[in-house]
Amino acid sequence: MNNKQIIFKKRPSGVPDAETWQLENNPIPELQEGEILVQQHYISLDPAMRGWMNDTKSYIPPVAIDDVMRAGSIGKVIKNNGNPKFEIGDCVTSWGGVQQFAITNGDGWYKVDTRLAPMPMYIGTLGMPGMTAYFGITEVGKITEGDIVLVSGAAGAVGSVVGQIAKIKGCTVIGIAGGKDKCDYLINELGFDDAIDYKSENIYTALKKKCPKGVDVFFDNVGGLILDAALSKLRMHARVVICGAISQYNNKSKVDGPSNYLSLLVTRSTMQGMVVMDYTKKFGEAAKQMGIWMKEGKLKSKEDIYEGIENFHETYNRLFSGDKNGKLVLKVIEE
Amino acid sequence: MNNKQIIFKKRPSGVPDAETWQLENNPIPELQEGEILVQQHYISLDPAMRGWMNDTKSYIPPVAIDDVMRAGSIGKVIKNNGNPKFEIGDCVTSWGGVQQFAITNGDGWYKVDTRLAPMPMYIGTLGMPGMTAYFGITEVGKITEGDIVLVSGAAGAVGSVVGQIAKIKGCTVIGIAGGKDKCDYLINELGFDDAIDYKSENIYTALKKKCPKGVDVFFDNVGGLILDAALSKLRMHARVVICGAISQYNNKSKVDGPSNYLSLLVTRSTMQGMVVMDYTKKFGEAAKQMGIWMKEGKLKSKEDIYEGIENFHETYNRLFSGDKNGKLVLKVIEE
Repeated sequence: MNNKQIIFKKRPSGVPDAETWQLENNPIPELQEGEILVQQHYISLDPAMRGWMNDTKSYIPPVAIDDVMRAGSIGKVIKNNGNPKFEIGDCVTSWGGVQQFAITNGDGWYKVDTRLAPMPMYIGTLGMPGMTAYFGITEVGKITEGDIVLVSGAAGAVGSVVGQIAKIKGCTVIGIAGGKDKCDYLINELGFDDAIDYKSENIYTALKKKCPKGVDVFFDNVGGLILDAALSKLRMHARVVICGAISQYNNKSKVDGPSNYLSLLVTRSTMQGMVVMDYTKKFGEAAKQMGIWMKEGKLKSKEDIYEGIENFHETYNRLFSGDKNGKLVLKVIEE
Repeated sequence: MNNKQIIFKKRPSGVPDAETWQLENNPIPELQEGEILVQQHYISLDPAMRGWMNDTKSYIPPVAIDDVMRAGSIGKVIKNNGNPKFEIGDCVTSWGGVQQFAITNGDGWYKVDTRLAPMPMYIGTLGMPGMTAYFGITEVGKITEGDIVLVSGAAGAVGSVVGQIAKIKGCTVIGIAGGKDKCDYLINELGFDDAIDYKSENIYTALKKKCPKGVDVFFDNVGGLILDAALSKLRMHARVVICGAISQYNNKSKVDGPSNYLSLLVTRSTMQGMVVMDYTKKFGEAAKQMGIWMKEGKLKSKEDIYEGIENFHETYNRLFSGDKNGKLVLKVIEE
C-alpha cells in the first residue's frame, strides 16, 4: 500500500506552475509507538494555500520545500499503534496535507460524527471556512439587527456562510460574486437580498444601485478594486473585516492598496484583520450553533467535489478562476 | 474700520495657486440683535484645510465658493449687541475663518482664560490639534504602559502632542519628521526615545533599526509611503490610527493606498479613522488634564507664529513644505 503525495518543490512567483508541486508515490513507513495511520478521504482547497507557499512572515510558517503540501483534510483511522485517544474507524480531521495517508501522534486531530453531517461538510461549513465566517462576521464585523452587510467572494466557502449568518441575525445582505449563476444562487438559494456580478457589472455603479444607503459591514475575501469600491460606500462607524485578498495572492509585484482608505477617517470606521486560529477555543460552541441552524434549514452548505489526487493542481486552479460552485473539495481516497 | 478677509474663489486641483483665494477689504456690517463682533488675533493653519476645499463627501461640508476661508481662530469680543453670554473683552475661540473680524450670534464660540495660557496655545495644544492628539492616542490608539508607539508628522501640532502623551503614559515613542532639526527637537526637547528623519533616511531601514520589535500603535498624519512602511512593522493586535494623510492631500489623481494593508490580517490589527469633533463633549476634561501636564512640565507646546493676513497663502504653504517649527499660527490683528 503506497501513499500518493503532492510534494511542494518550488516556491511559485505569481501563479503556481508545473514546477511548483510533484506527485510522488511513496511507501508508508511503520507506525511508531503512539501513532495512528489516517486514510484521508477529502482534502480542503482554500485560497489561503497560495499564501502558505510564500517565504514571508505571516500568521503561519510557510510550507517547506520537499514537504507535503499543507491542506486541511478529513479521513478515517485505519491503524493504531497504541494511541489511547483514537479507535480504528474513527473519522478524524486536521491539517493532514495533500496526500492519501497521514501518520500522526494525534496532536491537533479531532474526531467528528459522520452521522450528523457528511465528511466534506466538516472541512467546509463546519470546518475552517465556516468558523472563519462565524467569528469574522459576529466578533470582528460585530453585526447587529438591521445592519447592511456587503460580502465579497460571496459564493465561496466563507462568503456564503457569512451572508447566511448575517441574514439569520436580521441584516440586509448583498453579495459580490462572479457570474450570473452564482448571483442567482445567492439570491434564490441562500436568501441574500441582492447580488452583484463583478464580472458583468461596474462595481461602483452596482454598489450605488444596490447599496444606496451604504454599508455598515464589509466582509472582504477579495481585495483590490472591490475593496476600494466598498470603502467608498461605508456608513458612519462601519466595520471592514479583512479576511483575505484572493485578487492579490498571485501578484508578482506588490499588492494594490486601497486608495479609498481615507474613507475610514471620514466615516470613523474600522478595518480589522482576522485569522480563524485565534478562535479555536470557541469552535465547539460555533459548530453547535451552526448545526442547529442547518437542521432548521436556515444555513445551507454546498460542496463542489472533484476526484483524484492526480488532479490536485487543476482543481487548485479553480479557486482563482472562480470555476467552482461552493466549497472546493478534492476526494483523494481510491475506492 | 474694515475687515480684511481671505475669500475662497476657486477649488484647487492639486496645490492651491494664485486663483484659489482673494484678499478682500470689506466694510463690517452693523450687528443684528444678539450678535457680537470678535476682533480676531490668531488664525490656526491646519493640513485639514486642504480637504475642506474639495467638493467631495467628507466629515464636514466643503467651503463654499465666495465664502471666507474656513479656519479655527481666537480673538476678543469688541462689540456686543445684547448677547447675554459674552462681555466686551472676553477672549473667545471657534471657527472664525481667515479674516480680521467675525460677526456671530455666539453659537459654537467659547470663552478661554488667557491668564492660564497664551492665545495661540488655545488654537494649538489646548485647541483642536491637541484634542485630536489626546483622543486619538488614548481612545483610538488605546495606549497602555509599555506599548511601542510610532507617530508620523511627529514635530507637528498633533504629532508632537501624541508623542508626549504616549511618553507620559509610559510608552516607548519613536517620531517620524522631516529634517535633523525637527528630529533633534523631538528627542532633546520633547523626550521622544528616538526619531526618524524621512528626508534623509530610508524609512524601511530606519524602522528596522529604531523599532526592532515592531510597533503596537502607529498614529498616522501622513499616509503614502510612510503608512505603508509602518504597516510592515505591526506587532500582534496593533492599532493604526488614521488621523490624516498630508502626503496625499494635494494629489491630482487618486490617493496611494497602503499596499501592506494585509499586515492587518497577519497581525490581527485594527486600522481606524478618527475625527476630533466626535469628542466635543469631553474637550473640557481633556483640556484640564493637559493643563496639569503643562504645569508639571511634562507637556510642551510650541507655536510657530507668522504675521499679516496678506501672508496667508505663503504661510499656508509651510504646512505642506514642512518649513515650520511647531503649530502653525497666523497673527491677523494689526497693532
